[in-house]
Amino acid sequence: MQEVFKGIPMISYEGRESQNPLAFKHYNPEEMIGDKSMREHLRFSVAVWHTFTGKGIDPFGSATVARAWDKYPQAMDQAKARMEAAFEFFAKLGVPYFCFHDRDIAPEGGSLAETNKNLLAITDYIKELMQGGKVKLLWGTANLFAHPRFVHGAATSPNADVFAYAAAQVKKAMEVTLGLGGENYVFWGGREGYETLLNTDMELEVDNLARFFRMAVDYAKEIGFSGQLLIEPKPKEPTKHQYDFDVASVLAFLRKYGLDKDFKVNIEANHATLAGHTFQHELHYARINGVLGSVDANQGDELLGWDTDQFPTNLYSTTLAMYEILKNGGLHKGGLNFDAKARRGSFTDRDLFEAHIAGMDAFAIGLKAAYKLLKSGVLEKMVEARYSSYRQGIGQKIRAGNADFRDLEEYALTQGDIRNESGQQETLESILNQYILQA
Amino acid sequence: MQEVFKGIPMISYEGRESQNPLAFKHYNPEEMIGDKSMREHLRFSVAVWHTFTGKGIDPFGSATVARAWDKYPQAMDQAKARMEAAFEFFAKLGVPYFCFHDRDIAPEGGSLAETNKNLLAITDYIKELMQGGKVKLLWGTANLFAHPRFVHGAATSPNADVFAYAAAQVKKAMEVTLGLGGENYVFWGGREGYETLLNTDMELEVDNLARFFRMAVDYAKEIGFSGQLLIEPKPKEPTKHQYDFDVASVLAFLRKYGLDKDFKVNIEANHATLAGHTFQHELHYARINGVLGSVDANQGDELLGWDTDQFPTNLYSTTLAMYEILKNGGLHKGGLNFDAKARRGSFTDRDLFEAHIAGMDAFAIGLKAAYKLLKSGVLEKMVEARYSSYRQGIGQKIRAGNADFRDLEEYALTQGDIRNESGQQETLESILNQYILQA
Amino acid sequence: MQEVFKGIPMISYEGRESQNPLAFKHYNPEEMIGDKSMREHLRFSVAVWHTFTGKGIDPFGSATVARAWDKYPQAMDQAKARMEAAFEFFAKLGVPYFCFHDRDIAPEGGSLAETNKNLLAITDYIKELMQGGKVKLLWGTANLFAHPRFVHGAATSPNADVFAYAAAQVKKAMEVTLGLGGENYVFWGGREGYETLLNTDMELEVDNLARFFRMAVDYAKEIGFSGQLLIEPKPKEPTKHQYDFDVASVLAFLRKYGLDKDFKVNIEANHATLAGHTFQHELHYARINGVLGSVDANQGDELLGWDTDQFPTNLYSTTLAMYEILKNGGLHKGGLNFDAKARRGSFTDRDLFEAHIAGMDAFAIGLKAAYKLLKSGVLEKMVEARYSSYRQGIGQKIRAGNADFRDLEEYALTQGDIRNESGQQETLESILNQYILQA
Amino acid sequence: MQEVFKGIPMISYEGRESQNPLAFKHYNPEEMIGDKSMREHLRFSVAVWHTFTGKGIDPFGSATVARAWDKYPQAMDQAKARMEAAFEFFAKLGVPYFCFHDRDIAPEGGSLAETNKNLLAITDYIKELMQGGKVKLLWGTANLFAHPRFVHGAATSPNADVFAYAAAQVKKAMEVTLGLGGENYVFWGGREGYETLLNTDMELEVDNLARFFRMAVDYAKEIGFSGQLLIEPKPKEPTKHQYDFDVASVLAFLRKYGLDKDFKVNIEANHATLAGHTFQHELHYARINGVLGSVDANQGDELLGWDTDQFPTNLYSTTLAMYEILKNGGLHKGGLNFDAKARRGSFTDRDLFEAHIAGMDAFAIGLKAAYKLLKSGVLEKMVEARYSSYRQGIGQKIRAGNADFRDLEEYALTQGDIRNESGQQETLESILNQYILQA
Ligand SMILES: [Co+2]
Ligand SMILES: [Co+2]
Ligand SMILES: [Co+2]
Ligand SMILES: [Co+2]
Ligand SMILES: [Co+2]
Ligand SMILES: [Co+2]
Ligand SMILES: [Co+2]
Ligand SMILES: [Co+2]
Repeated sequence: MQEVFKGIPMISYEGRESQNPLAFKHYNPEEMIGDKSMREHLRFSVAVWHTFTGKGIDPFGSATVARAWDKYPQAMDQAKARMEAAFEFFAKLGVPYFCFHDRDIAPEGGSLAETNKNLLAITDYIKELMQGGKVKLLWGTANLFAHPRFVHGAATSPNADVFAYAAAQVKKAMEVTLGLGGENYVFWGGREGYETLLNTDMELEVDNLARFFRMAVDYAKEIGFSGQLLIEPKPKEPTKHQYDFDVASVLAFLRKYGLDKDFKVNIEANHATLAGHTFQHELHYARINGVLGSVDANQGDELLGWDTDQFPTNLYSTTLAMYEILKNGGLHKGGLNFDAKARRGSFTDRDLFEAHIAGMDAFAIGLKAAYKLLKSGVLEKMVEARYSSYRQGIGQKIRAGNADFRDLEEYALTQGDIRNESGQQETLESILNQYILQA
Repeated sequence: MQEVFKGIPMISYEGRESQNPLAFKHYNPEEMIGDKSMREHLRFSVAVWHTFTGKGIDPFGSATVARAWDKYPQAMDQAKARMEAAFEFFAKLGVPYFCFHDRDIAPEGGSLAETNKNLLAITDYIKELMQGGKVKLLWGTANLFAHPRFVHGAATSPNADVFAYAAAQVKKAMEVTLGLGGENYVFWGGREGYETLLNTDMELEVDNLARFFRMAVDYAKEIGFSGQLLIEPKPKEPTKHQYDFDVASVLAFLRKYGLDKDFKVNIEANHATLAGHTFQHELHYARINGVLGSVDANQGDELLGWDTDQFPTNLYSTTLAMYEILKNGGLHKGGLNFDAKARRGSFTDRDLFEAHIAGMDAFAIGLKAAYKLLKSGVLEKMVEARYSSYRQGIGQKIRAGNADFRDLEEYALTQGDIRNESGQQETLESILNQYILQA
Repeated sequence: MQEVFKGIPMISYEGRESQNPLAFKHYNPEEMIGDKSMREHLRFSVAVWHTFTGKGIDPFGSATVARAWDKYPQAMDQAKARMEAAFEFFAKLGVPYFCFHDRDIAPEGGSLAETNKNLLAITDYIKELMQGGKVKLLWGTANLFAHPRFVHGAATSPNADVFAYAAAQVKKAMEVTLGLGGENYVFWGGREGYETLLNTDMELEVDNLARFFRMAVDYAKEIGFSGQLLIEPKPKEPTKHQYDFDVASVLAFLRKYGLDKDFKVNIEANHATLAGHTFQHELHYARINGVLGSVDANQGDELLGWDTDQFPTNLYSTTLAMYEILKNGGLHKGGLNFDAKARRGSFTDRDLFEAHIAGMDAFAIGLKAAYKLLKSGVLEKMVEARYSSYRQGIGQKIRAGNADFRDLEEYALTQGDIRNESGQQETLESILNQYILQA
Repeated sequence: MQEVFKGIPMISYEGRESQNPLAFKHYNPEEMIGDKSMREHLRFSVAVWHTFTGKGIDPFGSATVARAWDKYPQAMDQAKARMEAAFEFFAKLGVPYFCFHDRDIAPEGGSLAETNKNLLAITDYIKELMQGGKVKLLWGTANLFAHPRFVHGAATSPNADVFAYAAAQVKKAMEVTLGLGGENYVFWGGREGYETLLNTDMELEVDNLARFFRMAVDYAKEIGFSGQLLIEPKPKEPTKHQYDFDVASVLAFLRKYGLDKDFKVNIEANHATLAGHTFQHELHYARINGVLGSVDANQGDELLGWDTDQFPTNLYSTTLAMYEILKNGGLHKGGLNFDAKARRGSFTDRDLFEAHIAGMDAFAIGLKAAYKLLKSGVLEKMVEARYSSYRQGIGQKIRAGNADFRDLEEYALTQGDIRNESGQQETLESILNQYILQA
C-alpha cells in the first residue's frame, strides 16, 4: 500500500518541553498511571466521519479540504482508498480504536440491496486492514440522518416505510459491527425529534422509537452481539427538538419502556453543553445511574449555539472528565472517541494529525491530573466530611429508612439554630488549578 | 374590613373594544366554551408570594413597591392585613383560586414551634376569609429555599439537620394545605441541586430526595390528603444546576425510585424556556406521559437568561398552552396559577390589577383560539393523514409488535425509492395566526 | 417560456376567512393604508439564494429539494432556467422586488474572467426578463463567503490576494447592480471576523475592511451608482466572531473611519436575535441614528443558537417592525426582503409559495396593526406624558445645555423625595394584543 | 483598632507546592516579571461592595453572611467599622488598591444634604485609614441603580428630577474620588437602558446620557480631576437592554457625541460573556481602539444567563487577559479590580480571603504564562507570517492606499488559483496549554 500522509512520521512521545507539533508532549501510551497504562486508561478512538469524510463544509461555505483519495472517480475505489489512508493514520497516531457510520465507509447504491453489497465489500476490506489487531473497532452505527428519506425522522418518521428502511439499515450495521468485532453499537437519533409540534404525533413517535430499540435489542441477542448498546443524547441540531435531549431524557424514556437494562449512554461533551449541562455533569449523572458507557471526546464553544465538535483542548474539561471516568472504574467497553473535526480553516492533512495530538495530549494531562487528585483524596475527604451527618444520628436513620415526617418533626422541634459549613467553592477551584498545573 | 384597593372596582367583562384598563376585554367568566364556562376551563389562581409579598427588589436594586399592609410594625398584624388585602384582590378580580408558600402567609418565629404557631394562627384566619367559598386553595407549598439554613439544599442538604427541618416544615405545610381544602400540594426544589460538583455527593443527594418524597407520599396518605402531589421542574436559578431540570428529568427520577404513580408536574412557562424547551413542549410531553398536573402561568424573556416570571401576554404561548390543556381533558385538579410578578417598574397597586387582567385576557384569547382550532380539526386531520401509514400494512404490523428487524429488512428490500410528504410548517404557522386573529 | 410552477395560479387576495393556502388573507396590494398602498409600504422582495438555489441541506443532511431547473446538465443553462422560474414566481406572487448574490445567478467559471463573462451573460438575460418593469432589483451583492478562497475572510483575509479578488468581485457586482437598476447594494461580511484571536491581527483586518469600504464608496461614485450602500450586521456564524456584530458595532466602525455618511444598514431579524437584541431594537436603534436602510425579513428560533432564517410569521415581530418602519417614514429605497428559507421539511414547490404567502400576510397584518397603533397615538401619548419633565423647568434646561453639575446639585438639594410613575409594561403589552387582534 | 479577622495572618507567598489555603502559591508581589514586579503588573484592587457589603442574598434567598461590623446598630458606626475591617483585609492580603461606590461606604440620610454629610464624614475617616500610603484608591463611582428613585434610569430616566439627582450624586462622588487621590472614575449604567421599547423614547434617553457625560467631563476638568474617566459596559441585567451593551456600543456612542477622547472603558469579564463575546475579545477590541482603561476581574458561568461575578480562577481567561494587558503596555492608571463575590455558600470570613487568594493566584499564573508566551514570540511570529502578504506587492499597495477597485481587478484577473495557509487553531490551542502548564 502506498503511503498517503507523506512526511508525517510515526507520532511519538517527546515530553512536555518538546516544540515538535508532530509529537506527543503528554500522551505516553505505555506509561503506567496506577495499574493501567495511559493507552488502557484512555482507549482513544478516531471517528471515520470527521477525520476521513469531513470536507470543511459549513452552512455558508463549500469544501476547503482536499484529500488524496478524492482522486478516485468511482465511489467504491474512493471508499477503499479512504480506509487505507485511515489505517495508515491510525498506525501513525498509535490509536487503538476507530469507529464509523455505515455510510462513512461505503457509498449508497441504487437500491438497498446494492448499498448492502457495497457495505459488505468494504467491511471485508476493513477486516484485512485490521489484521495484526493493532486497531480495533470501538463501535459501529448507522447513519439515519443524512439521506433525504430521513427528513422527518427514521424510527420516528411519520412514514412507516422509513421506519422499515431504518430497521433494515441498523440490522445490517449491527451485523457488520459484529463481524468486525465491534465492542459497542451506538444509536444517535439526529432526526428523532420534531421540527414543530403543530404537525407531530409525539406519542406515536416515541412509542415507535421504543419499538425500534426493542427490536434492536432482540436482534443483537439473536445474532449473538454481546457488545454494549449505547444511546447518544443530543438536544437539538439538526432537529429543532430531539427526544434524546440529554442523559436524563434518555433514562426517562428507557425506564418507561423497560429498556433501561439494555442500554448505556455515549456522552458527547458538546452535546452536554448544548443541553445546558457541563460535560462533567452528564458523565457524573450517567455514572451514578450506572449507564456511563462511552465518550465522544470533543468540545464546543459556549458562546456559539451549535455543535462545533472542536478538538478537546480545554484542560478543565479533560481533567474533570477523566475524574469521572476513573471513579467509574474506567470506561470498560467504551472509549474516548474523537467525534471532533478540525476547524474549517485547519484544512491540511497535517492539521488532522496535529488536531488529534492536541486532543490526546489534553486528555493525557487530564488523566494525570485526575489520577493525582483522586489519589490525594483531597476532594473525597472534603466531601466525606461535608456529608458526615448522614453517617450517624438522625442522618443515619434517614438513610436507613427509619425515619418518617413525624420523627423528623419531633427531632427538628428540639434543635436550636442550624449551623452550616462553607461550601468552599473558590478554594476547591484553586486546588483544581494546582493539580492541573502539576499534572 | 376596610377596603385596601380603593378606587379599584370589581373587574368586569366589557368586550374586545373596551379601552378600560380595569376591565376584561376577553375573559368573560360565565361564557361557555364548549360545555364548560371560561372560569371552569381556566381555573385561574393568584400567587400570594409575587402579588402580595413582592417588593420590586432585583439583584441590583431595593424595593420599589409600598403596600398598605407594610404599615403594621408587628409581623403577625402585617400578615393578617396582607391576607385581607389578598381576599379583596381575589374578589375584585374574580379569581376562583389562590396558592401560597408557608412563609408567604406567616412569619418565622424564634423557633420552629413558634413559627408553626404563627402559621396555624394565620391559617385559621384564612379559613374565615375563605368562608363563602368563592375562593379556594389551589395548592400549598413550603418555602425551602429562602432561609439561609437551606443554603446548600433542603432534602439534598449535606446537613441531616436541614433535611429533618425541611421534613418538619413540609409536614406542617401539608397539614395546613389539607386544612384549607387545598386541591394539590407542590414541591419546587429551588435549592435541590448543586453549585459545584467538586464538593457534591450527587448520588446521596438524589437518594435523599427520593427518601424525602417517599415520606411525603406516606404522610399525605396518613393524614388523608387526597390532593395531587406535584413537582415543579426548573433547570437552574437559584442553584447552578437543579435536579428537577425539566419534566424528563423529573420522570427519570420518579421512575427510578418507583414514585411515578404518586406525582404529577406543575409546569411553569419560564422554567420550560430556561431548560431549552418551549412551554408547549413541556406541557405536551407531560400530557402524553400522563403527568400534566397544573400550570404556573407566566412568560420569560428569551433574550434574558434568568427567570423573569413576567405576566403572560404572548398569545402564541397562551394559545398553544390551552391547546395542550384542552387535549388533556382540562387541568382536572390543577389550575392556571399566575406565578408572575409585575415588572419592577410597575410598582403601583393598580399595576397588580392590570397585570393580572393582561394575563387573564391573554389566556382567555388562547382558550378561544385553541378551542376553535381543535373544533375545526385542521391540525388533527393533517396529523392523522401524516401518520396514516401506521394504520395499515407494514406500519400497522410495527405498531402491533408483529414485525422484527428481519421482517422489516425483507420489506425494505422490496421497496423502491421512499416518497415523503412536506411537513408544511410555514402553512401551519399561518393557520395558527388565522385562529388567533379570529379568537 | 414554459410554465414551471404548474398548478400554481396567480396568488390573489381572498380575505381573512379564506382557507385557500394559495391566497393572501391579509396582503391586499392595492389597499390603501393611509396615503400609500400596501405594496408601496411593504416593498416585498424575494431572495434568489434561498428561494431558487436552496436545496434543503443542513449540516447533517443532504438535499431534500428538487427543482425543475436541476435537470439542465450545463451550469449556464440551469442558471437561465432558474431565472425564468424566478420571474414566473415573482409574477405569480406579485412581488415588486428581488435581490441576489452574484454567484446565485451565474456559476463560477475556470477563471475570474470566465466567471465575469458568465455573470454578464446572465445579467443580460435578467434584463430581458425584467422588461415590463413589474419586478425591480432591490439590491445586489457579492458572495464573498462560500468559496474556499474566503476561508479566512475576504476584505479581512490575511492573504492580500484574497482582498484583491474580493475587490474585483464587488466591482463587478456593483456594475451589474447598476446595470439592472438596483436601488441598493449590500455588504454582508460573513467571513469578516475571526475564528480564534490566537492567529489574528484584528487591527490590520479592521483597517483593511475600512479600506475596502472606502474603495467601494469611491467606485460607486465613479460609476454613478446612486443606490444606497448597506452593511448587514450579523454577530457570528459562519465566523466565530464577526466584526459587524450588530448595528452598534457597525456604527462604531463607520464613525471611526469617517464612513458613517456613506452607509446605512440592512437589518435581519434573525441576526438581531443572535446578537442578543430584539428585531425591534435593531430597527429602532438604526432609525434614531439615521441609518435604517433595508430589512431582511425573517425570524429565528430563540431556543436555537443559529441562523434558522425562517419565514416570518410571528405577528409581534412584524407589528413592531412595521411600527419602526412607519416611524422611519417608510423604507425609502429599502424593502422587506425575504432572507428566509422554507424549512428543510417543506421541500415542495408549493411550499415555496405558501411560505412566502405566510410571510407576506404576517407583514400585512403587522402593517395594519402598526398603522392603527400609530394613528391612535396610544403609545405616543403615553411616552409624551412620561417624558414631559424634559419640556419644562430643570428638564428643559438640561436639554438646552443650560445646566451643569453645580446647577443640578443646587436643584437636587432643594427637592424632596422624588416621585416616579409606573412604567405600565403589562398594560402596554395588553394594548399591543388588542391592536394585533383588531388588525 | 481591634483585629477583625482574627486567626487570619498576613498572606504570604509559599510557592506552588504549598497546601496552605491562606497562602499564595503563585502571586509573589516583589518577583520581577520582565522589568516590573508582579505587584506593578497586576495592580490588584478589592471592591468594597462585594467584599464588605455583600450579604449572600440571591433572588430566592436571604443573607447567609454575617460580619463583625453588622453588630453596630447605627449606620454610621457600622460604616466606620466596615472600613476598618476593609483596611485590615487590604493589609493582610497585600493589595495595593481598593474601589467603591459612594453608597458602599456611607449610608443615605434623610435628604441629599445629609447623605452628602455622611459621605464626607466617612471619606475623612478613609483618608486617615489610607495614611501610610500602602493602599490607594483605584477608582470611585456613584451607585445610580439601587435606590428606587432610579427605577427607570438615572441619566436616562424619563424624570428630569432623577437626572438632576444623579448629577448631584456624581458631582459629589467625583469630589470624593479626587479627595482620596483616586486614579480613575467609573460610570456603570446599570439602569441606563430600557425595560420595554413600548414606553421608551430612546433617542432622548441616549441624548441625555451624552449630556450627562459631557457635564461630567466638564466638571472633572473644573475641579482638576486628572484621573481617567471610564465607562463599564454591560449588556443586560438589571435592565433588559442597556445602552452600554459592550465596548463597540460604547464607542459608537462616544464617537457620535464627540466624547471619544474623554473616556476609556472598564472591562468586566462576566459582562463580556453576557454580551456574547469572550473576555479577551473585549480587551483586545478596546486595546486596538486605544480605550483599554481598567479591568473588573471576575468570571461568569457560561451555562448561566446572569452575572455571577465569580472569582476568576480559569487560567485560560487570566492568561489571555494578561496577554492583552501586556500588549497594551500594562494597565497604566487602571488595575485588576475583583468585581467578584464569594459564592453564597462561601459565607465565612475565611472564604473572603481564600477567594481573593484564588483569584490573585490565577492572575499571577496568567501573567507568567502570558509573559513567556510573548517573550517566546511564538504567536507573534505565526501572525507575522500569516499576514506577510500585506508587507509587499499588492498587499502593501492596499495598506498604503495606493490601490482602487480597478487596480485590484486588474491584479486579480492575472492571478491563478489562490492558495491559503492553514489557520492551525488546534495547534495554537495546544501551544497555549503548554505555556499555561509551564507558567
Ligand atoms: Co457524537
Ligand atoms: Co457533536
Ligand atoms: Co413556579
Ligand atoms: Co419562575
Ligand atoms: Co440577511
Ligand atoms: Co440570516
Ligand atoms: Co463590574
Ligand atoms: Co458583573
